[in-house]
Amino acid sequence: MRLVDALFSTEPMTAAFSDAAFVRAMLAFEAALARAQAATGVIPAEAAGQIVAACAGDWIDLDAFARESVPAGTPVIPLVRRLTARVQGDGRRYVHWGATSQDAIDTALMLQMRVGLDLLIEDLLGVAEACATLAERHLGTVMAGRTLMQQALPVTFGLKAARWLALVCRQVEALHGLRTRSLALQFGGAAGTLASLGVDGPRVTERLAAELGLPAPDLPWHTERERVGAIAAASGVLAGSIGKVAADLLLLAQSEVGEVAEAAAPGKGGSSAMPHKRNPVDAIEAAAAARLAVGLAPVVLSAMVQEHERAAGGWQAEWSAVPDLFRTTAGAVDRVRRALAGLTVNPARMQANLDRTGGLIVSESLSMALAAHAGREQAHHLVEAAVRRAVEQGIDLRTAALADPEITSVLSPDAIDAALDPAAYLGSAGLFMDRALATFATVRQEISRDAI
Amino acid sequence: MRLVDALFSTEPMTAAFSDAAFVRAMLAFEAALARAQAATGVIPAEAAGQIVAACAGDWIDLDAFARESVPAGTPVIPLVRRLTARVQGDGRRYVHWGATSQDAIDTALMLQMRVGLDLLIEDLLGVAEACATLAERHLGTVMAGRTLMQQALPVTFGLKAARWLALVCRQVEALHGLRTRSLALQFGGAAGTLASLGVDGPRVTERLAAELGLPAPDLPWHTERERVGAIAAASGVLAGSIGKVAADLLLLAQSEVGEVAEAAAPGKGGSSAMPHKRNPVDAIEAAAAARLAVGLAPVVLSAMVQEHERAAGGWQAEWSAVPDLFRTTAGAVDRVRRALAGLTVNPARMQANLDRTGGLIVSESLSMALAAHAGREQAHHLVEAAVRRAVEQGIDLRTAALADPEITSVLSPDAIDAALDPAAYLGSAGLFMDRALATFATVRQEISRDAI
Amino acid sequence: MRLVDALFSTEPMTAAFSDAAFVRAMLAFEAALARAQAATGVIPAEAAGQIVAACAGDWIDLDAFARESVPAGTPVIPLVRRLTARVQGDGRRYVHWGATSQDAIDTALMLQMRVGLDLLIEDLLGVAEACATLAERHLGTVMAGRTLMQQALPVTFGLKAARWLALVCRQVEALHGLRTRSLALQFGGAAGTLASLGVDGPRVTERLAAELGLPAPDLPWHTERERVGAIAAASGVLAGSIGKVAADLLLLAQSEVGEVAEAAAPGKGGSSAMPHKRNPVDAIEAAAAARLAVGLAPVVLSAMVQEHERAAGGWQAEWSAVPDLFRTTAGAVDRVRRALAGLTVNPARMQANLDRTGGLIVSESLSMALAAHAGREQAHHLVEAAVRRAVEQGIDLRTAALADPEITSVLSPDAIDAALDPAAYLGSAGLFMDRALATFATVRQEISRDAI
Amino acid sequence: MRLVDALFSTEPMTAAFSDAAFVRAMLAFEAALARAQAATGVIPAEAAGQIVAACAGDWIDLDAFARESVPAGTPVIPLVRRLTARVQGDGRRYVHWGATSQDAIDTALMLQMRVGLDLLIEDLLGVAEACATLAERHLGTVMAGRTLMQQALPVTFGLKAARWLALVCRQVEALHGLRTRSLALQFGGAAGTLASLGVDGPRVTERLAAELGLPAPDLPWHTERERVGAIAAASGVLAGSIGKVAADLLLLAQSEVGEVAEAAAPGKGGSSAMPHKRNPVDAIEAAAAARLAVGLAPVVLSAMVQEHERAAGGWQAEWSAVPDLFRTTAGAVDRVRRALAGLTVNPARMQANLDRTGGLIVSESLSMALAAHAGREQAHHLVEAAVRRAVEQGIDLRTAALADPEITSVLSPDAIDAALDPAAYLGSAGLFMDRALATFATVRQEISRDAI
Repeated sequence: MRLVDALFSTEPMTAAFSDAAFVRAMLAFEAALARAQAATGVIPAEAAGQIVAACAGDWIDLDAFARESVPAGTPVIPLVRRLTARVQGDGRRYVHWGATSQDAIDTALMLQMRVGLDLLIEDLLGVAEACATLAERHLGTVMAGRTLMQQALPVTFGLKAARWLALVCRQVEALHGLRTRSLALQFGGAAGTLASLGVDGPRVTERLAAELGLPAPDLPWHTERERVGAIAAASGVLAGSIGKVAADLLLLAQSEVGEVAEAAAPGKGGSSAMPHKRNPVDAIEAAAAARLAVGLAPVVLSAMVQEHERAAGGWQAEWSAVPDLFRTTAGAVDRVRRALAGLTVNPARMQANLDRTGGLIVSESLSMALAAHAGREQAHHLVEAAVRRAVEQGIDLRTAALADPEITSVLSPDAIDAALDPAAYLGSAGLFMDRALATFATVRQEISRDAI
Repeated sequence: MRLVDALFSTEPMTAAFSDAAFVRAMLAFEAALARAQAATGVIPAEAAGQIVAACAGDWIDLDAFARESVPAGTPVIPLVRRLTARVQGDGRRYVHWGATSQDAIDTALMLQMRVGLDLLIEDLLGVAEACATLAERHLGTVMAGRTLMQQALPVTFGLKAARWLALVCRQVEALHGLRTRSLALQFGGAAGTLASLGVDGPRVTERLAAELGLPAPDLPWHTERERVGAIAAASGVLAGSIGKVAADLLLLAQSEVGEVAEAAAPGKGGSSAMPHKRNPVDAIEAAAAARLAVGLAPVVLSAMVQEHERAAGGWQAEWSAVPDLFRTTAGAVDRVRRALAGLTVNPARMQANLDRTGGLIVSESLSMALAAHAGREQAHHLVEAAVRRAVEQGIDLRTAALADPEITSVLSPDAIDAALDPAAYLGSAGLFMDRALATFATVRQEISRDAI
Repeated sequence: MRLVDALFSTEPMTAAFSDAAFVRAMLAFEAALARAQAATGVIPAEAAGQIVAACAGDWIDLDAFARESVPAGTPVIPLVRRLTARVQGDGRRYVHWGATSQDAIDTALMLQMRVGLDLLIEDLLGVAEACATLAERHLGTVMAGRTLMQQALPVTFGLKAARWLALVCRQVEALHGLRTRSLALQFGGAAGTLASLGVDGPRVTERLAAELGLPAPDLPWHTERERVGAIAAASGVLAGSIGKVAADLLLLAQSEVGEVAEAAAPGKGGSSAMPHKRNPVDAIEAAAAARLAVGLAPVVLSAMVQEHERAAGGWQAEWSAVPDLFRTTAGAVDRVRRALAGLTVNPARMQANLDRTGGLIVSESLSMALAAHAGREQAHHLVEAAVRRAVEQGIDLRTAALADPEITSVLSPDAIDAALDPAAYLGSAGLFMDRALATFATVRQEISRDAI
Repeated sequence: MRLVDALFSTEPMTAAFSDAAFVRAMLAFEAALARAQAATGVIPAEAAGQIVAACAGDWIDLDAFARESVPAGTPVIPLVRRLTARVQGDGRRYVHWGATSQDAIDTALMLQMRVGLDLLIEDLLGVAEACATLAERHLGTVMAGRTLMQQALPVTFGLKAARWLALVCRQVEALHGLRTRSLALQFGGAAGTLASLGVDGPRVTERLAAELGLPAPDLPWHTERERVGAIAAASGVLAGSIGKVAADLLLLAQSEVGEVAEAAAPGKGGSSAMPHKRNPVDAIEAAAAARLAVGLAPVVLSAMVQEHERAAGGWQAEWSAVPDLFRTTAGAVDRVRRALAGLTVNPARMQANLDRTGGLIVSESLSMALAAHAGREQAHHLVEAAVRRAVEQGIDLRTAALADPEITSVLSPDAIDAALDPAAYLGSAGLFMDRALATFATVRQEISRDAI
């Protein structure tokens, strides 16, 4: 295992996009092609059997295969040559029949991306599960909401987790939709006409698609890459979403904030020089992997500009960028899942941080309470003045408010206290949490129903 | 009009994302908020009327507004201040009631993106129309298919246009889907709890969403940017797709290829130094605009990593990147539409180019014809040898084939001629064109049915 | 002024890359060309005088000019047409003599980039000045150094400012180097041979370069864009560097950290809903502008792949991306300069934050003190144990250390106290600050010496 | 060897950025640190000897090392643990003394990048050599210059090669400059103060830098990444430059242009389905690798925004992006070198293509010849009319010109013939070639003089 795969990916995703898996997927294409052509009477059934038999197993010397691909400019040439040599009997005359190298490569990529999407969905459901658990557990854990890196208004940690959950659920739905909309067989022959199959092209295509469980597209799409582009773009959006959760965790885990910490484990998060540190290692690796993934998505997008009927450069760049994109996206999702699943939440620190402003964080609550009587503008001015006095005199907002006759003329001390209780100024936070949890239940059900 | 907008955008899209349109959209939010709050009893109806009245018209000094936004860090502060000053009577106490600046900005962005998506869909339908016309007109126009920048096998220009058409139709469907899935009201108040509205938050939200014709999301999504990310990503995919069409046009219009030319028009495509040139100006501008758009999409993706309940940097970057992305995507689509709508196609040059290889371009056809008798491998070797002789001796493939007894022993001269007729080696090209045209008919119908 | 330019750029840079400035720069090229050709006897002196006279002033209707550029595909065609019409007498026969549109556009871009680099250098020196002032003022202000978002070891705020300073000084040197290495005249005629000037090409080139104060390159470089690429790349590196400073400021200004605050000013950094907030507006705008700039640099890099002797797409994309890159880079630099110049530093909060770990932050100091007697490994273990006890028992590290006989057997209480004093564990911080200040003095001197 | 490394990189560069090389470079840091600390009296000489001995060799189980790095969040923790266990005697107490994990990783990266830059420079000199050979061989090979994908004016293939050469020479100089300016030791200890070394920090730093042959920076630069950013940016600029050469080769090798072809070799560039094809495989792989590299550079740039004294995400992302960037840049350079070194140039096709416009390509020559008598504007109109007639009547420009009395009244038939000879309308092409060759001679000398 390469260091970068260990750090920024997962074992299943690394395996799904390994050279071995790529070769296996291309051989799956060749075997399915033979079966489909036998079934449609294009090649003899015996020949197909011989081809299918030769496709089985991990028999290719991957290193030699890689080296031979270089002068060929495509891995399919050495693959087909080696496969042909391996096929017994007449079958060797029908290897790769009517197909072009891009048919094998693109279909293999689609098969790999299908695995990749399933792995991502599975891991995302794990993230969602962890978020849901946190949301339920912390329905009532009040903390500071922060805007522009400043304390703004109270929220709950449950709401924060619920918003992550809603974000993740929408990503699950997005990937699930792509699985239906954007996966497709590639099969067009050398210039996309299936010319070498004469009139049999469409029937072979249907059967081949069925063999592989991939949708048959209306037309070959060798240089119309919007399917690959859409999947890459969705990975980028997913990585950006996951990066947001990782960023929040890193900010909450700062020494001065201390509201969350990652689970301690032997060998985890220690520092080589600072024995007291507990670094948020999972969130860091998630943040790094998410950055990498977000950076790889545009490589695929800009490679979409592909020439004529087969591209000279853009298509080939996908062979590197798409696997790297899946690998790093998976790493980001997995590490955020780990971080959330083992998260230590510190409600006492949340409360202490919330108290730090001496009530300023609920000044809007006071402002709204006043506004009901004095109008938004006047209320804003009164509270602004009280805030200023509180800051200047180093007193809390309650004291400053009680000292202002313009405020006390419309609000009683009890009303002021009520207005300054963070836990009473949470608006629809509870409703929002409920909605996110309900959506998760629905999404989970949909996914498990559709799972193959 | 700025030069870059003239060159790489369209007037309607430039207008839709102008400062004036942004201000108008924020005022539309403020007016709708007042109406929604009056309808739900949160503010007096009279106050709402005064606010709505003040929101009407283009009364803001945009230059001053821009300058005042800088110290405020957000355009909403000067907007609300100016609006409040303009509202007559008690209404001014209820301006922006319960909302936060991000509610106004994000909702305005959504309203602008809705216009933007509609403009893109409209222009894409224009591109599709032009493709469909070309496909129908050139069903039988045989030309060289080209892979890796080399002539590969015959295709038809109709098929080429049909593949562009299929690509564009899928983009129309993608944008249409986003219009439903990814647009949403933003309304959460300062920290996303709608705290200042007490228990009225959800009812106001529903009503506000209805007023603006935007879906009400389950939860506020201030820092969960996957909606914006998905739209940006789709624009990037669209721009990449359009860039592909532009690239094909540029390649086909090369002096040495000469298979297409853009419509001549006074002042169009001339050169300051070379009086004979007819530059493919529309395709060039499309290619440039597409590059810009593809480059802007990742800016939005990487800005998705947004902190806590409101971001300090990433969100603000959207204010520049999203409009630029829509502007340049529109430019790319419009220029490709123009190029296709006026395209001069030169079937004679297509035929001449096709003939240039002396039959080599249909060597696969000969190979397949032979393979039926001799197997794929042996056929490949025979044709390779004939090709080699043809190239070495400067003869055409027909002559070389007829001189090879191994070939003539299995194929008659007539069979060789048939195998070497490009128009007879088009496989399923016709079927594929029909499918693309049928899909377009369906998509066009769907869009017009759903159009508001 | 557009809102995005107000928020994310500066007035001088917006002006330097306005359409008006672009036209002015192209006219400067045309005037200099006429002068150079008169001086070398290629055109009559009188004609040159007429051309130069016509080039003066802001007489072009920019809106019409922009619209006419669209069908032409280049702004030079309408420019030359309008200029020719304006020239009095025979001079009109010699307008744009021997030049191609790209000569005018690229040279204009170089002239604008020269202004742009000078503006950036000037603003960077302002950033450096502010850093130097902070470094000198806070030589002894001890604070927590933070790694991986966790308190690590003590540093000083002076050192932090000195590291920003060193970073900025290296950027000044980098831009200064580019000013010499990467600016160049473009002059090659239609295909880069200067064919229309016969044997006079090189002499005209030398003179033209001298007229404009731009280096004359060895060869025309119409499609060899490494000069533009290098400048764009350097802007990206600069924006990334500035983004780092902005990020530090945002982190230090967080409510829970509170170690710095931006200068208060009327209308600055308030919140529409939260009267107590003081948002770090300058740093936020800097962070946003830096993101935009970092995102634009790769657009220019990927546009470097330019075809043959003039590109169809990549070159044109520069016309939008390069100005946007300079604009946003300038915005980032300017806002960080503003933030630093007015920065309020809170040494008491720095000390309080440092104390928060109960001495854990200097555990390395204790570890090193022990290591001198017990070896690195054993010291690490002892301190790790003491840290664990301190954390578990809620005591400070001093107490935990004094309670451990293995520690006290090698270190006296006084030695333990000395090891736990943050101000005494700063290593070479002072030296590093001195070096950064010395480098700044040198760089400032170099720049002012070389200034034109 | 991974498939993507085979296709898009080189063996030496893949080796230079392998996990094995990374571990070896970190161990080189640890060994040099021990030697430097012994030399400065910070640790016992005997201990240093034991550490140095233990660092030698490839003894680390890379797979286990990768896995252990994951919970640690950094590869240095398992590295130091394993190294410490391996050191004999007292030395183990002094392993990694005073250093932090980032010191080892960043210094290792610098050592690897030094190798990487040297490999790139060496390969670039190979590209330059091939360009110089082509330039010298084709000084007089006239061909069409092409702007906006249209034939514009004659150039020579020698000039085209000379411009590639000049581009490459400037890249060699840029990388050579970076080798001096941007490589640097990283050594700062946990928070960049070298606190654990007391007053010995600077002396150890100097010695350590000397041991490793890396410049000692003024200050540690853990989160000031402009050195890494500048190298990444330069790689991006290089990849963009190489991508341009690859694009030209692909365009020139098109079937319809046919002016160059890559060297044929067994197994090279064949097609699985089209036996007649000779694909420009090297240029395609170069184009793909260049795209990947151009896409990776911005990942490093956007990762420059690093927090406080050590980043949580951005820095870690470099561990993947920088090696990938070097790998793919090397692949691009190597493949273009191969393509150029074996390039078959077809002067006859160049001449034939040039003749295709029937003299239109030298219409500027005719225009300039006329302009000397009739002024630029009038000449332009006359030639435009002649061109129009030529196009409309399907005659060549010579015939059309001779038929126009306004032209023949100022130019004799001989003068018209002279004006229409492409080989006589090359302006300064020869001089430009000479200059590029002279610059190459100088650069090659400089590099070999400075080589270590």
